[in-house]
Amino acid sequence: MIDPRPRTSRPRAMITSAVVAVIAVAALGVAEAQQNRAAQQIKYRQAAYTVLGTQFGIMGAMAQGRAPWDAKAFATAAERAAFIATVTPDTFPAGSESGAPTKAKSEIWRNEAEFGRMMNDLQAKTAALATAAKGGNADAAKAALGAAGQTCKACHDKYKLD
Amino acid sequence: MIDPRPRTSRPRAMITSAVVAVIAVAALGVAEAQQNRAAQQIKYRQAAYTVLGTQFGIMGAMAQGRAPWDAKAFATAAERAAFIATVTPDTFPAGSESGAPTKAKSEIWRNEAEFGRMMNDLQAKTAALATAAKGGNADAAKAALGAAGQTCKACHDKYKLD
Repeated sequence: MIDPRPRTSRPRAMITSAVVAVIAVAALGVAEAQQNRAAQQIKYRQAAYTVLGTQFGIMGAMAQGRAPWDAKAFATAAERAAFIATVTPDTFPAGSESGAPTKAKSEIWRNEAEFGRMMNDLQAKTAALATAAKGGNADAAKAALGAAGQTCKACHDKYKLD
Repeated sequence: MIDPRPRTSRPRAMITSAVVAVIAVAALGVAEAQQNRAAQQIKYRQAAYTVLGTQFGIMGAMAQGRAPWDAKAFATAAERAAFIATVTPDTFPAGSESGAPTKAKSEIWRNEAEFGRMMNDLQAKTAALATAAKGGNADAAKAALGAAGQTCKACHDKYKLD
């Protein structure tokens, strides 16, 4: 049987191409949106760690005598570290392994239980640090800072790229 | 009287040059250290605002229907915004006007009283937002988010570069 609409083949092909192109663009849009979202999540994560690390920097300078001891400023930094430690676990959502430069190893998303325990340890030790700092005893505060710093190091050694 | 140590003149000049060089290097070191310090302070400031802005993003998406309403997640974001609003005033120390790219206008450091009042307003409105969000009434939470958002806008309009 003769095709009654032979001349429609080219328009059809064009329509098909157009549909494929639209789907491709839409897929690219989704991929781009996902990458933008991941980049935002990574930026948020790094920002939270910058705020956390700054508190450790402030306390560390006092503990090591590079800055004068200021019990109130130390206690404020400790309280801030303890609070941010409750935020950081939410900064590793699925899909944020890549999409922007990140030092977070992909093992984090394969060992979520262990990573979660390390996060809990950070929270516990920074909470203890905040309590010790509020107490006003410099030696106790320094010891608690050391213990909290160990939880940072343990996690960085295992889950952060150099 | 004959100088008994004529041959020390060249070594003396060399020593003087060396001392000048050491002082120059030290001065450069101080300038560099100050710039590094300012860059760190700016990084800290931007990080704190990224953490703050992320909370507003989370709440805004829910308030505008781009994300499903989740009263608990909204309340968590509100509490985090209120806490970070207590940190941000400490992220504008003297000397952090420049040293790295920053959108903070130099007027901040010339109008500290007004800037401080805007910071207090941010704290008050985010604290009210956290209270409203904890109450669980979505309309009250959305209204409080709008009021808090106005304090962001008021300050950005005046003190943040486009």
